[in-house]
Amino acid sequence: MKTDIPEATVARLPRYLRCLTDMAHVVSTCSSEELAQAAGVNSAQVRKDLSYVGVHGTRGVGYDHEELRQQIRKALGLTSPHPVVVIGAGNMGTALSTYKGFSTWGFSIVAVLDVDEERIGTRVDGLIVEPLQNLEQIVASKDVEIGILATPPSAAQSVADRLTKAGVKSILNLAPTILKVEDGVSVRRVDLSTELGILAFHLQS
Amino acid sequence: MKTDIPEATVARLPRYLRCLTDMAHVVSTCSSEELAQAAGVNSAQVRKDLSYVGVHGTRGVGYDHEELRQQIRKALGLTSPHPVVVIGAGNMGTALSTYKGFSTWGFSIVAVLDVDEERIGTRVDGLIVEPLQNLEQIVASKDVEIGILATPPSAAQSVADRLTKAGVKSILNLAPTILKVEDGVSVRRVDLSTELGILAFHLQS
Repeated sequence: MKTDIPEATVARLPRYLRCLTDMAHVVSTCSSEELAQAAGVNSAQVRKDLSYVGVHGTRGVGYDHEELRQQIRKALGLTSPHPVVVIGAGNMGTALSTYKGFSTWGFSIVAVLDVDEERIGTRVDGLIVEPLQNLEQIVASKDVEIGILATPPSAAQSVADRLTKAGVKSILNLAPTILKVEDGVSVRRVDLSTELGILAFHLQS
Repeated sequence: MKTDIPEATVARLPRYLRCLTDMAHVVSTCSSEELAQAAGVNSAQVRKDLSYVGVHGTRGVGYDHEELRQQIRKALGLTSPHPVVVIGAGNMGTALSTYKGFSTWGFSIVAVLDVDEERIGTRVDGLIVEPLQNLEQIVASKDVEIGILATPPSAAQSVADRLTKAGVKSILNLAPTILKVEDGVSVRRVDLSTELGILAFHLQS
């Protein structure tokens, strides 16, 4: 029902939600201008994006802050919990597993996996690191929907293959490599070097 | 000289560089189709993007792999080293400070800072965590160009203000909050919850 929202709008909605959460303690209504300024886009864009989630502000008053958050959460599918598995219990995997931002949006890390004997059995924020060989069994028993890859780049593709074969349709890839996946699988990639590369370019100007 | 490259092209160039690095051990030339497939864009886009960095392939042969990498690095300003400071020595800051992807592109983490007495003085990948109060002195003495924020969200804005006041013009923000900075300062933001939010949306379809 909500899948006719343009991709660019989908990418901005979590940003609006973040801004609304940041201002939650101070306001009960919020104008498109305020939201636009906080999110770093223009207010016409905000109004257009929000019309896709079925929210229309009141002239002179703006949007009801709580309703707006609720509608964005609903549009993004954040109203039901999403079980997440993290593969790789190195520094990055540990950082992700303990990242406080996830749980407030309904993402729940249900398992952390690794191949390293020294890491297996250790504790990461309340979870015991499990061997990678348990992946398929964990995905099935815990209804895992999202896999986060924090493996070395050389291992990322084979883990992605196992995740998708086990039925996981969404992957967040933090390994600095590009994955090939079949149609119907969504991959988001966070490459920190890429972000620094873009910053480096701007340093020249 | 290179600053007339469109922003969307700038954002794709590090991705091409990543793909070229991934295939470096197997090929000496590379067609726009191969690069397009690896990077997940179409080949006309690849050819257009690469024309901005002054590289034109040979018909039937493709691009010289090494020349292409070199030209992209040059366009992005990755041929000279970039000193980077990381603020926040928690899990995320530690993950960033030890992230192997940075050094291969010329980014050098020169200091890790924190306010937590328990972290100050500990070792993170060869660096001793220093007190945040040293920030301005470190930026000046080590010619820091880029600041990476891995602080709690509540501290991010004040640290960003100090960084920019000290002359840092590029910030990579991993704290889940949106920063306000003056004109001329570039901010890239990595919000892992946002990425998961986009994946959650796609789970609905």
